[in-house]
Amino acid sequence: MTDIPYKIYLEESEMPTSWYNLRADMKNKPAPLVNPGTGKPMTAEELSGVFCADLVAQELDDTTPFIDIPEEIRSFYKMYRPSPLVRAYCLEEKLQTPAKIYYKFEGNNTSGSHKLNSAIAQAYYAKKQGLKGVTTETGAGQWGTALSMACAYLGLDCKVYMVKISYEQKPFRREVMRTYGASVTPSPSMNTEVGRKILAEYPGTTGSLGCAISEAVEDAVTHEGYRYVLGSVLNQVLLHQSVIGLETKAAMDKYGISPDIIIGCAGGGSNLGGLIAPFMGEKLRGEKDYRIIAVEPASCPSFTRGVFAYDFCDTGKICPLAKMYTIGSGYIPAPNHAGGLRFHGMSPVLSQLYHDKYMEAVSVRQTDVFEAAEFFARCEGILPAPESSHAILAAINEAKKCKETGEEKTILFGLTGTGYFDMVAYEKFHDGGMTNYIPTDEELQASIAQLPKL
Amino acid sequence: MTDIPYKIYLEESEMPTSWYNLRADMKNKPAPLVNPGTGKPMTAEELSGVFCADLVAQELDDTTPFIDIPEEIRSFYKMYRPSPLVRAYCLEEKLQTPAKIYYKFEGNNTSGSHKLNSAIAQAYYAKKQGLKGVTTETGAGQWGTALSMACAYLGLDCKVYMVKISYEQKPFRREVMRTYGASVTPSPSMNTEVGRKILAEYPGTTGSLGCAISEAVEDAVTHEGYRYVLGSVLNQVLLHQSVIGLETKAAMDKYGISPDIIIGCAGGGSNLGGLIAPFMGEKLRGEKDYRIIAVEPASCPSFTRGVFAYDFCDTGKICPLAKMYTIGSGYIPAPNHAGGLRFHGMSPVLSQLYHDKYMEAVSVRQTDVFEAAEFFARCEGILPAPESSHAILAAINEAKKCKETGEEKTILFGLTGTGYFDMVAYEKFHDGGMTNYIPTDEELQASIAQLPKL
Repeated sequence: MTDIPYKIYLEESEMPTSWYNLRADMKNKPAPLVNPGTGKPMTAEELSGVFCADLVAQELDDTTPFIDIPEEIRSFYKMYRPSPLVRAYCLEEKLQTPAKIYYKFEGNNTSGSHKLNSAIAQAYYAKKQGLKGVTTETGAGQWGTALSMACAYLGLDCKVYMVKISYEQKPFRREVMRTYGASVTPSPSMNTEVGRKILAEYPGTTGSLGCAISEAVEDAVTHEGYRYVLGSVLNQVLLHQSVIGLETKAAMDKYGISPDIIIGCAGGGSNLGGLIAPFMGEKLRGEKDYRIIAVEPASCPSFTRGVFAYDFCDTGKICPLAKMYTIGSGYIPAPNHAGGLRFHGMSPVLSQLYHDKYMEAVSVRQTDVFEAAEFFARCEGILPAPESSHAILAAINEAKKCKETGEEKTILFGLTGTGYFDMVAYEKFHDGGMTNYIPTDEELQASIAQLPKL
Repeated sequence: MTDIPYKIYLEESEMPTSWYNLRADMKNKPAPLVNPGTGKPMTAEELSGVFCADLVAQELDDTTPFIDIPEEIRSFYKMYRPSPLVRAYCLEEKLQTPAKIYYKFEGNNTSGSHKLNSAIAQAYYAKKQGLKGVTTETGAGQWGTALSMACAYLGLDCKVYMVKISYEQKPFRREVMRTYGASVTPSPSMNTEVGRKILAEYPGTTGSLGCAISEAVEDAVTHEGYRYVLGSVLNQVLLHQSVIGLETKAAMDKYGISPDIIIGCAGGGSNLGGLIAPFMGEKLRGEKDYRIIAVEPASCPSFTRGVFAYDFCDTGKICPLAKMYTIGSGYIPAPNHAGGLRFHGMSPVLSQLYHDKYMEAVSVRQTDVFEAAEFFARCEGILPAPESSHAILAAINEAKKCKETGEEKTILFGLTGTGYFDMVAYEKFHDGGMTNYIPTDEELQASIAQLPKL
């Protein structure tokens, strides 16, 4: 027996009252969003046509280290937070590793993931501004569900464009969003000009996050009283998600634990950026060192095989340009079962940190990810989301290395969500029908060659 | 603001170390199981052909008030327990009620319900006895998932007979069980003699818990090294589920809260029996009074329209007889979307307590249940299981009465699980295609007339 419980829950009184803005501690700030028409940084005024005013302020603020969490958002957080920091005793035993494995589990809410942390914040500011509603895109459906929940709570209208392949693979996700009063449209759709254009060009496309973003933005800017909200990539989203890392750090500090390795899956980067925030802050300030690893799917390898350059965040090329690791906004990833990681780019904050070598990245194959997922489910009980299972696999790999070397490292990873709506994927895995598509160098080069010239 | 947090989590050190055996405090003990062949109480030896030895002992023990929870089970409990006791601040506000509403939420584990509490206990004793595996039935799929998880953890084989309508309505449940290594068969099936007989007699049947039980029992007794395990009804199951009530009471005591009304949904009675256990104990010992309400579906009203008599627990009439409230083991309830509540009978413990007027019962209509479920989801965030939503509806009704009378009652209800695998039902509700089937008096009389004569 040990002093560390299976699950560490903070008291309500120990929950963070501010978000931590990692950018304030970055020497090399993430590059600003750029207007593709003028080639100049987007102004607050330009951004305000698309985003809520308070969120624009958060997006552009790279100097204030702590930003108060409004009381109303903290109340909502208390409905499903603090989330547990779990000691993976059973996983450690099954692996026979001397490593100590912890995971921050964000799946104990109906959206099934960490996405709710930013959804309630974005919905709150939209409500505060007196808007009628918001539009958004969703990949795996977790962000759309999260936003639906937040909007239902606050009484806002919610329009969701859902990546077509997820819409088809996860029929029940739509019904959950409907339960919370949202409208859900498979993307690309005939609702928008950009959707119609993409459909004409690629009639059989299964969609992508980039394409759904284009549609949601167009819908917002062409309807009075609506703004667009985004579940990842943006600086504001990483800010809101810092609540994950802040809680984790508080829980670890309480028990005198310090991670040697911190691992998170990375699609747009919101979970990873949130989890690592306070740890990376210490690293940036030179107070402490941590090994930080981003895990991405081999089928959509922006960090490991992309370039660090300005690119569109969306397929339709109607959004501002962001400087980030990208495999090209025109690249439509092969269908895989981690819809939340099928994004061609990466958070500008994380991209800058990766470029400056404050973190590493690895890419993993889909079938290996599901093998790790099932192994994890059977010993830790929790059925993980395919996205989260990328981090599980990397954590298991690190724990196995510890077994070889005998090192008692402390490994922390983000278990972002549950796989209850991913059973089509698990079924394919069980039936042996799951494949691993890895883009060729030629494909990526062709896509990267299309990057906008500034 | 108030002193009571949104969620009360006990510390690991505050978790129960014994189960509480309510029967020890009952003056009128629940009637024994009876052998239908001899008309005499089932002996331990007879029961041991079907159930594990340690579980038989627990089944028959109506005098020991506390039974130690083995260390291994307590370790497993720590992976997903303590479950939170939630103060429903938002629900109270939306209802504008002076009532204080609490719910014990058992859905934060992959089985999605409280069923895991007994599954791990039963699997543990099977393993301890050196068995190869266990067989069981499942209605909504929650029990089957729970047992699969417990068996995967302990390395036992697990065969699940799933009520056909749930199998069809919840295709992904099967895949979850498969992820945990179980085999799942829709019931009635051609695997067993009793299944083949039922199929011949009622070719279009959508199945029932009673019928699936018959098949699972037959499978166990005809295969070497297997025993049957049951997720509800039995005394042993209520014993294991007492962990729900013990945690709830410990959490309430910690904050000086005492419920006036305790509400739970009732199918076979495992959740309700577990939730109320320590409170009912106080009531039986005359230490304190509580109003206790069982909520059942109008389509399967064993408490409110059944009789208190000996009946078979299963449709196939191969199980022992139990004295309980029943609408007849031959009654196959109309399809509804709370598969976990489609059982013709009721726990003998709860039946005796209801008969002795220690508790009340109400029946509610399916569409009202889903309306309450959606209302609850939108304000409390959690998407509830249809079963649990029966309790939500009754709690809302009591809270509304408090609004009328101005009474500040404290209402506690059991939120047994989540509805992530019930989206077919929610979809039907949204689309207006949900109906309310309520059996006629003639139907129930005809079924009850078939009760076995002792």
